[in-house]
This record gives sequence, structure tokens and C-alpha cells, in this order.
Amino acid sequence: MENIGKKLPEQVADTIIEYIQEHDLQVGDRLPNEYDLAKELNVGRSTIREAVRSLASRNVLEVRQGAGTFISKKRGIADDPLGFGLVKDTLKLTKDLFEIRYILEPRVAALAAANASNEEIQAIDEVRLAIEKAMDTDTELQLNLDVEFHSLIAKASNNVAMHHLIPIINESMFLYNDGYTNQRVKEETILLHREIVAAIKKHDCDAAFDAMTVHMAYNRMNLNRFEQETNK
Amino acid sequence: MENIGKKLPEQVADTIIEYIQEHDLQVGDRLPNEYDLAKELNVGRSTIREAVRSLASRNVLEVRQGAGTFISKKRGIADDPLGFGLVKDTLKLTKDLFEIRYILEPRVAALAAANASNEEIQAIDEVRLAIEKAMDTDTELQLNLDVEFHSLIAKASNNVAMHHLIPIINESMFLYNDGYTNQRVKEETILLHREIVAAIKKHDCDAAFDAMTVHMAYNRMNLNRFEQETNK
Repeated sequence: MENIGKKLPEQVADTIIEYIQEHDLQVGDRLPNEYDLAKELNVGRSTIREAVRSLASRNVLEVRQGAGTFISKKRGIADDPLGFGLVKDTLKLTKDLFEIRYILEPRVAALAAANASNEEIQAIDEVRLAIEKAMDTDTELQLNLDVEFHSLIAKASNNVAMHHLIPIINESMFLYNDGYTNQRVKEETILLHREIVAAIKKHDCDAAFDAMTVHMAYNRMNLNRFEQETNK
Repeated sequence: MENIGKKLPEQVADTIIEYIQEHDLQVGDRLPNEYDLAKELNVGRSTIREAVRSLASRNVLEVRQGAGTFISKKRGIADDPLGFGLVKDTLKLTKDLFEIRYILEPRVAALAAANASNEEIQAIDEVRLAIEKAMDTDTELQLNLDVEFHSLIAKASNNVAMHHLIPIINESMFLYNDGYTNQRVKEETILLHREIVAAIKKHDCDAAFDAMTVHMAYNRMNLNRFEQETNK
């Protein structure tokens, strides 16, 4: 990291990031307390406090009152990172985001079939089952689990950029268009999620690619149907 | 926007975003001054000030000392929006980002061939020419122009999500791996940029798709060559 022209707390923020990387701290892990960190990094506690505050605003750290400071599960990804809150036409935005998913997700599924560990496959399958259970009872939970399902597949793809990007695309779709998500056809989703997981389990890249393609195609058909109904 | 539980400055920040949308303010446009805005939105000037500060930190607005407050050209996109600063292995990150470009850019080029206006085509062509000029004299300028070139094509695709995403992917690649970008082969880039622009000009989607695919494939070959040389 380039430190020229940076203020001390910013430099210390960079140093804390290096500390996190060197100690391989994972999401949910606890950072040493202010006192120990100040000692370790050889700076004042007020500087540490300011650096931690700035890292919390960047979603790198999460400060839980009374419990300590932890690696945020947001993994440094900003709120509304792509600035979609500024886009006016949210139905078009949803369709445009969908276009991106349509192109990326089949490749992600194929990579997941190639690279997923047994633990990752098990985690994906558990979320798949939870989605089926939530489907008739709790739409909001179902939608959150759906983001989690595709996010876990992206994680299993072993492409770190996909793992950061896919959840953002999916969350944005839900965020900016409630109506669409309620239109999603349940039976198709259940069956295709099962196909996707089965293909990843068998490490069959083509089958995973195809099942995800069909899943995306069905979703887009539903989105367009929803649009036509809305325009009536 | 949901205002329950939000503090007043946050609510006013939302209102300012609505104001920007309703008045269709574009990048570089000036926001009314604090006094007029306070009057228009019927809140105190200190609240406006706090709301503007928060929108500036979100890269929605840009405060230029003495000149006023403007719509930021960062279009609300956070600095390091995808949290890549936390990723340790930057060569792997570069390759993983490249995988995303490889999948998205040909489709973006095809959409641009379908949708680009004459003004957009002209702007793309001007940047193409500027890249050729900068190539032997100013590497940093060339890289910035390259991001601009692909960003303008994404804009011309008329997919707003692509327009937000493509520059972030490209900037991240340059940001986290200097070495790679210097390895890029110049002649191939010049020729393929020309092919891409020619195809978009002719509104030939397949030709645009193919030219961009070749451009991406060459770039990936160079990236892998660079990796092998680095590992020697």
C-alpha cells in the first residue's frame, strides 16, 4: 500500500487490513482489543479507534457494543456498492441486472461443479432444503436464502471476484423490485435448484451449466410475464 | 424510500436523491445552494449540510470548495465497491476478474452494436484514437483511456447495470495488478479496438461479439504468459 499523503489513521487502517490478511482472520473472527492493537501496531488508542471507525464504515469491520470488533460478514463490500439507488427506472434496472446474472450464473455453476469441496456442497444443499421449507411460509426468508444459495455456489466456484459480485447483483434485484420476486414460480425453482445441486455434487460441469441456464431462462420468462401484466 | 427508523439527515439525503431524479440532474450538474435547498426541502441548513456530506461520502455528490456542490462523476459508486482491497492473492484476483470480463464484454459489445447512438459511436471512436496516440508515450493515460473505452461501450449497450459494473471490474484489474497491464501487447490491442468500433458502427452484433471475444482471448493469453514469466 502506498502511504504517501495519507493521514495517520488511514495508514493505520491499511496496517489493520494487512494484520487481518497476515493472521488470515475470517468473517466473524474477533480483532484484538484496542489496547493490544495499539501496543502491537505501536500507535495511540485514539488513532486505533479512528482507524477502526473508518474500517467499520467501509464494512470491513463490525463493532458490536460490549462484545468487541469483528471481521464483518459484508467483507468490505459497500452498501449499494454499484450506486443503483440513483437509477430511476427500477424495472429496467432489474432486467439489466438479470441480463448480467443470465450471462454469469451458468459459468459460475460450471466452475462450482469443478471446484466445490464436500463441505461447500453440503452447505449449498442445506440452503436448498431451507428454501423449499420457507417457500410457502416466509417469502422474505426465502428471498434471503435464495441470495445465500447463489452466493454459496459462487463461493464454491473458487472465483473470488464472482463471490464478491454475485450476491450484490442478486440483492440489488430484490432491493429494487419487490414485485418481480413474488412472481417467481415455485415449482420450477424447487426442481431446478435440485438439478443444480445434483450436478455440482456429481462434479458434472456441463450439467451444472445447463441446469443453471434453464433456471435463469425460466426466471427471465417470469420477469417478462410480470412486466406484461404490470403494463396491462 | 422507507423512512421509518431513519434519522433526519438520512431522510433528507433520500429526499435530495429524489430531487436529483425528479429534476433529471446529470453528472457535473450543480445542486442548488444550501440556502435554496433548505428552503425548498423545508429543513434547516445544518441538516442539509450533514445530508450533503453523507452523499459526498457515498460519491453521489462532489463538493468543490468555493464553486458549489455537483453531481459526482462517480455516480454513487463507492471506492473499492466490491471490497477487493481485502483479497490477498492479487494475481488470482486479476485472473478471476478477467474471467468475468471475458464472459460479459462480448455480450456488452453486441448490445452496443444494437443500441449505440451516433454520438456514442463518435465518443467511442475518439477514445480509441486517443489510446493509439497515448500508447507509446504515456502508459498511465493509456490505461485510463482503456477503462474509458470499455466503459463507453458499456454505456452504449444501454444496459445500466453493465454501465455501472464494467468500469469497476476494469479499474480493479489495473488497481491490483500493475505488472499485467504493462505486458499487454500493443499491436493486437490497436487492431482489435478498431475491429470492435467498426462492428459497432455497422450495428453488426455478431461482428462486435466476435471482435470483443478475440480481444479478451488475446488479453487472457497475455495474462497467462505474464504469470508464467513471473513464476520463472
